[in-house]
Amino acid sequence: MGDTGEWQKMLEEISVRYIDNFWESPPVNPILIEGLPGIGQVGKLVAEYMIHVLCATKIGEIHSIYFPPQVILEENGLARLVRNELYIYRGEGRDLVFITGDHQSTSNEGHYLLADRYCTIAEEMHVQRIYTLGGFGVGHLVPEPRVLGAVNRADLRPELEAAGVFFDRDEPGGGIIGAAGLMLGLSALRGIDAICLMGETSGYLVDPMSAANVLAILSKLIGVPVDLTRLNDRASEMERAIEGLVEGNRAQNDEELSYIG
Amino acid sequence: MGDTGEWQKMLEEISVRYIDNFWESPPVNPILIEGLPGIGQVGKLVAEYMIHVLCATKIGEIHSIYFPPQVILEENGLARLVRNELYIYRGEGRDLVFITGDHQSTSNEGHYLLADRYCTIAEEMHVQRIYTLGGFGVGHLVPEPRVLGAVNRADLRPELEAAGVFFDRDEPGGGIIGAAGLMLGLSALRGIDAICLMGETSGYLVDPMSAANVLAILSKLIGVPVDLTRLNDRASEMERAIEGLVEGNRAQNDEELSYIG
Amino acid sequence: MGDTGEWQKMLEEISVRYIDNFWESPPVNPILIEGLPGIGQVGKLVAEYMIHVLCATKIGEIHSIYFPPQVILEENGLARLVRNELYIYRGEGRDLVFITGDHQSTSNEGHYLLADRYCTIAEEMHVQRIYTLGGFGVGHLVPEPRVLGAVNRADLRPELEAAGVFFDRDEPGGGIIGAAGLMLGLSALRGIDAICLMGETSGYLVDPMSAANVLAILSKLIGVPVDLTRLNDRASEMERAIEGLVEGNRAQNDEELSYIG
Amino acid sequence: MGDTGEWQKMLEEISVRYIDNFWESPPVNPILIEGLPGIGQVGKLVAEYMIHVLCATKIGEIHSIYFPPQVILEENGLARLVRNELYIYRGEGRDLVFITGDHQSTSNEGHYLLADRYCTIAEEMHVQRIYTLGGFGVGHLVPEPRVLGAVNRADLRPELEAAGVFFDRDEPGGGIIGAAGLMLGLSALRGIDAICLMGETSGYLVDPMSAANVLAILSKLIGVPVDLTRLNDRASEMERAIEGLVEGNRAQNDEELSYIG
Repeated sequence: MGDTGEWQKMLEEISVRYIDNFWESPPVNPILIEGLPGIGQVGKLVAEYMIHVLCATKIGEIHSIYFPPQVILEENGLARLVRNELYIYRGEGRDLVFITGDHQSTSNEGHYLLADRYCTIAEEMHVQRIYTLGGFGVGHLVPEPRVLGAVNRADLRPELEAAGVFFDRDEPGGGIIGAAGLMLGLSALRGIDAICLMGETSGYLVDPMSAANVLAILSKLIGVPVDLTRLNDRASEMERAIEGLVEGNRAQNDEELSYIG
Repeated sequence: MGDTGEWQKMLEEISVRYIDNFWESPPVNPILIEGLPGIGQVGKLVAEYMIHVLCATKIGEIHSIYFPPQVILEENGLARLVRNELYIYRGEGRDLVFITGDHQSTSNEGHYLLADRYCTIAEEMHVQRIYTLGGFGVGHLVPEPRVLGAVNRADLRPELEAAGVFFDRDEPGGGIIGAAGLMLGLSALRGIDAICLMGETSGYLVDPMSAANVLAILSKLIGVPVDLTRLNDRASEMERAIEGLVEGNRAQNDEELSYIG
Repeated sequence: MGDTGEWQKMLEEISVRYIDNFWESPPVNPILIEGLPGIGQVGKLVAEYMIHVLCATKIGEIHSIYFPPQVILEENGLARLVRNELYIYRGEGRDLVFITGDHQSTSNEGHYLLADRYCTIAEEMHVQRIYTLGGFGVGHLVPEPRVLGAVNRADLRPELEAAGVFFDRDEPGGGIIGAAGLMLGLSALRGIDAICLMGETSGYLVDPMSAANVLAILSKLIGVPVDLTRLNDRASEMERAIEGLVEGNRAQNDEELSYIG
Repeated sequence: MGDTGEWQKMLEEISVRYIDNFWESPPVNPILIEGLPGIGQVGKLVAEYMIHVLCATKIGEIHSIYFPPQVILEENGLARLVRNELYIYRGEGRDLVFITGDHQSTSNEGHYLLADRYCTIAEEMHVQRIYTLGGFGVGHLVPEPRVLGAVNRADLRPELEAAGVFFDRDEPGGGIIGAAGLMLGLSALRGIDAICLMGETSGYLVDPMSAANVLAILSKLIGVPVDLTRLNDRASEMERAIEGLVEGNRAQNDEELSYIG
């Protein structure tokens, strides 16, 4: 997967490396789906789940001096650089390309440069539309988390609302930080449509329930059915665990009160 | 407003993009007015108010990897990159060009590089004089805020004093930080006159009263009448709101004292 | 050791300078051993001890704008730049090259750029294998510290396990930070085998005992016998000192208890 | 002092600008004296005092994106960029060149790049020797502050000791940070002798007494008599002020004790 000569490019700050022969059968009418680490890990959960369930194939890796300066250990003691990864799912008449990975940038400037590189990748693949995925932290447990949307062209909004995406006038007030946000802005400059789907989430925990909601809507929008069973299972488990904690807290509070009373 | 090829320039750290055909009728004897976010938002309030009241036209956008790495959501769910903007008001025999926007640089080096780019813009437009606008935080409410001045050529001072600008020997002692300051220093190296007008302000609140004072003097200096009504209205509203708070506090204090007494 | 013209390269961020004529007799089948400052100073202790005991010769220096911006004073009042150093031990049929030094990078990006440069050095010397050395902080005193391993190619693991290196499924969970980690990932891209040996250590103290354990295994792996006497002596001294502290604490606790009792 | 074209160089991060015709009569056998802001402002006090007393002439300015992003206001309301300055004193058979200024770098990398640029200046002027000046903070008031030394070539030490400079085996243990230190290391690589003179100082106050000590020794070393009267006067004033404070404290303590007693 590349040789020394190629690697010199890492010193140009960001390195994108494809598997051999990838460009011999380029993606067909591709949609790009970005799901990188962030609030509640919502975006990353969705992207990784889709890659797993759809048996998407890995097509490339991204390394950068803007990622944290460390290697990650895999179970067998194998160390590898922090990376983002590219996957492809060859669909019927339309391919899905995924960007997911370990980390986002550690610096402000790096966020811009990485997001811009992802948009260059989209452009090189003649991507028709970009979906960026993330969580929207509300600071408390959300019984029925909604999916909020943002677009980089106003005409994209009705289609999303029809699919159940909410557009909250004031949310998220602070804007959208990192790749999920910047790719909307940067792809607009390249004339590529982009949509951000954000699952409401507490912001304190990895949130498979929020991810399942985002995935349900994304699946509808891209016309690719995805079996949500395992993600829903994980969400249910998590819900039970949280309920257990809440119950436990309540019980403990009752107990403490009975001591007092 | 630009194409992909042009956008490659963003990777050169700062990107200035003009509307099509802008340079076909370049600014006439222009004055450049900078009003970016800062203390009390004074500079930004003045620039945005002038743009609104004078019906100035947008002529360009500035994006940069030195801005915060996020997009901003507009009311319709449309996401856009953090940006600074250029506007023009075609006056009689003299045009006004405005620089305003969402944010200043997130890094020290970026402050220099952005301010230098703004001065390059001034030079390309053959700007005759630059006004930079800001607030001067004094740490307490100011009943009658003055407008302080700074210049990049000593000869500029008398004209300002005649217009009511104060030159306080020791103020601001810490210098002027960000674009409002750097543009004075950097434009001097290009031989362009530049003046900084700073409205005294508490530094705790957005301050339309301070902005109105700055605008009254700026309007006199550039010979462009600006209807201050709406800015003064906003200042009055704010003043009443603050008085209400102060009254409320006093009442509460009295009440507390009556409990004690 | 180099002239002015050469030094201009420092402004290219990292400067590697060899002693004159070094490349006239290049290293033979070299192994590269990296021991830079880090947790418990384990890696640096091992590298410096080996350099001392094997009477390795200094062959070069590395300076960088990514090191802390200061000079270090030697005993005679001589000031020198913060640096990393290269040493060579000319063995039988196989040379050892060492990288050790004062500091690692002060910035994230610098970590990548320095580690990448070290890998370029390895490549230029046709290094067969890289060993990076470090400590693995466990947060408490470790009576019998193990040596944990990580590799950049799965096939390297059995040989290490045979030599007594542990591969703990979950350790280190946070990955390996700095040069010891990054060199594994970056050398993989160049097709160079690399192994990280980490001595368990409290993380609070310079740890010669952990270093002795790492060195014993490294010595076995590279087939170069190293007399451990002085390192073991230092470890024993330290152990006695710590026991003294623990005894003292216990005595004090007993005393305090006797007051209470 | 330069035109627009020249200023483009600022975007190369550091800009050195000389007065017109400076190079027509280049410095003769010059010694370079660096006195920038730092602990106790000792170095800056010495350099500025020498420039004043010797009536040295300004020959250049240095601007950089590594300085704080602000302008400084002079008494007449004139704003100017943060800068370092170059001065020359045309002595008999030997000129003195001074580097002093407002600030040092705000970033680690900038420290290296600026110090390296200062060494390039030294090289271009064929400087014979560099003196860097600073304070050495000891954390308490020092009744008779010594002058500590550091050199970039061991042979330089005896001459300094003869002039009364101390070489403390362990001081300063943390090395010498910033330009005063880096210039020693960086000039060694260019084959230029450099000496750092550090006045002991509390580190809490601007310290003219420490500066006077440094200057007395520097004056002896460079063979240029400097009238110390005014610096000693300022030191005496400061000493009296501090004694007043100490007396006041003691009196207050006595008073408090008399209340208790």
